[in-house]
Amino acid sequence: MPPSGPAAGERPAVALDGHGAEQGADVLIQGAMEAAAEGIRLRVFGESSGLAALDESDGIEVIAASEAIGNDEEPVAAVRSHPEASVVMAAADVAEGGSDALVSAGPTGATMTAALFALRRSQGVRRPALTVQLPVPGDAGGPPPIVLDVGANTEARAGDLVQFAYLGSAFSQAVLGVERPSVALLSIGEEAGKGTAQLVEAHETLSAAPGLHFVGNVEGRDLLARAADVVVTDGFTGNVVLKTLEGTAKAVGDAVGSAARSNPVAAVGGLLLRPALAGLRHEMDPDNTGGGILLGLRGVAVVAHGSSGPAGIANAIRLAARAVEERAVDRTDELLAASDATRSGLRAGSGGL
Amino acid sequence: MPPSGPAAGERPAVALDGHGAEQGADVLIQGAMEAAAEGIRLRVFGESSGLAALDESDGIEVIAASEAIGNDEEPVAAVRSHPEASVVMAAADVAEGGSDALVSAGPTGATMTAALFALRRSQGVRRPALTVQLPVPGDAGGPPPIVLDVGANTEARAGDLVQFAYLGSAFSQAVLGVERPSVALLSIGEEAGKGTAQLVEAHETLSAAPGLHFVGNVEGRDLLARAADVVVTDGFTGNVVLKTLEGTAKAVGDAVGSAARSNPVAAVGGLLLRPALAGLRHEMDPDNTGGGILLGLRGVAVVAHGSSGPAGIANAIRLAARAVEERAVDRTDELLAASDATRSGLRAGSGGL
Repeated sequence: MPPSGPAAGERPAVALDGHGAEQGADVLIQGAMEAAAEGIRLRVFGESSGLAALDESDGIEVIAASEAIGNDEEPVAAVRSHPEASVVMAAADVAEGGSDALVSAGPTGATMTAALFALRRSQGVRRPALTVQLPVPGDAGGPPPIVLDVGANTEARAGDLVQFAYLGSAFSQAVLGVERPSVALLSIGEEAGKGTAQLVEAHETLSAAPGLHFVGNVEGRDLLARAADVVVTDGFTGNVVLKTLEGTAKAVGDAVGSAARSNPVAAVGGLLLRPALAGLRHEMDPDNTGGGILLGLRGVAVVAHGSSGPAGIANAIRLAARAVEERAVDRTDELLAASDATRSGLRAGSGGL
Repeated sequence: MPPSGPAAGERPAVALDGHGAEQGADVLIQGAMEAAAEGIRLRVFGESSGLAALDESDGIEVIAASEAIGNDEEPVAAVRSHPEASVVMAAADVAEGGSDALVSAGPTGATMTAALFALRRSQGVRRPALTVQLPVPGDAGGPPPIVLDVGANTEARAGDLVQFAYLGSAFSQAVLGVERPSVALLSIGEEAGKGTAQLVEAHETLSAAPGLHFVGNVEGRDLLARAADVVVTDGFTGNVVLKTLEGTAKAVGDAVGSAARSNPVAAVGGLLLRPALAGLRHEMDPDNTGGGILLGLRGVAVVAHGSSGPAGIANAIRLAARAVEERAVDRTDELLAASDATRSGLRAGSGGL
């Protein structure tokens, strides 16, 4: 069952997985307290002893859940066989209406599986998509572009890509406040015929898709150039690209740091430049976006980075709360339904609607 | 016919496409003269009037070829219907033994098609692969890793990926001088079961492949961390990843530049840091690697960046000459043949050998 939502005037309640943060429970505690200070209610599922610092008077409830799913476990089998695992209990809490959204910094596969099983797919959605905001360097010109799918599925049919376009567009509008989000396919050339057979077919469908501002193909080098608000790709490519982007930004940042340590003059230069670079470091920090959100479900589920610090956890909770408050799920369903009602391509294209 | 190679004591002759450089013929002229000064002989196919600065006494011969293939032409049709196009004539020159290797900064698709038609695939190779050295920032620890395929094919079967592993390993040994190149598959997790069905199958075959130092899967964030000397992927993913990497490095570099212009103190810092950053700029400059080389053919073909400056053209010519001098084609064929002789997986896996 989808959650009934918070009462009027109340901020949403978020079910937080109390296990899985690589930096330990302290990170979860601090992140939860930061978000709770803004009025977001929290239900934390974890080891009671380790979470004793959390206080119900702050709007944070701790529910005992001592089991955790490990990184090396096969997600589907693990979720099925561990109903007492913290992420499974947290997801069930959202489904039962005890809270409004799920947040976990545990293994991505387990979080996605627990969310999918408990919250179920939205009407007509064949595959949910993991969606992230890109860490765009430089002066901000509106919210960062989003990319989906970055790993919920390994492969995507043309119809899946078309659905991702609608899911991403609705999220960009509802949660990021982009009025008329531009939507693009990630490919190896701008021409409609470039890319895999799935991309060429999706391009054709999207070119005539109602309710979408489709702008064609973009390439890897356009991602950080804000060529589109919503970039659609299959989960394999999206995952590789996201990690390439993060790895490259880190490598270049590290190299700039090394250069600044290479001689005394450069070191002075580095010191003088450092304050101006603080903004860039913040913009490129994965903690900044709060992680990925799983779109296409009947509820809100956020996959925080496993390596999140307190700010990353707090931002993941904020992202989940905002998605609830902006009615992201309902608005996505409305957009999908409207598109369905006006043409048959989406239905036919996906082969699975 | 494959070229017979340069005479003893002579450096190779390179057939250079005199059209296609985005920055104009001057870039080609300067690049050719730079390479010719090192004893590499050149046969330049292009507009005689525009290349009048080139002199036979420098070891550079100009062959009139006024036609060029444009970026917007379908490569196969264009190459077939324009035997007088400069890149087609240059490729034919290599096939006929007039020169030893092809270099073009023109449209990638046309260069690859002209090379494939004229030079033909090596015995047993189903698909050639476009191969590039990654622009690795920071202190060099040996030659940069290579990635293939970055766009010769849109899709790859498991057997193609296995062949790419051999092609890349042989190139790394022969041309880059890596003694025992480590070879990895680009995927979305280190575990053998991660990724597409093709990757999982290729992983299994490579794990038992003779004559290869296969180290498993790497992820996007490992590319610049030198996790492997040879990274194998399909041409779609490789192309998107390469462009993402280049775009991210540029975006971060630009953002550092903006930060250094944001206030007077930062500007002084930027000036003091600039000399130390020169090495990084050089390392990340695509001109540095000379472009991509098409592996799996019976001859050497190098695809220079369309945006190459003179240094980029010169490096592309050097790469082509080195591949000839190091007998890259023969050594690759030997490695492929030896692997074929010892097991049947390669043949069975690709379905097309």
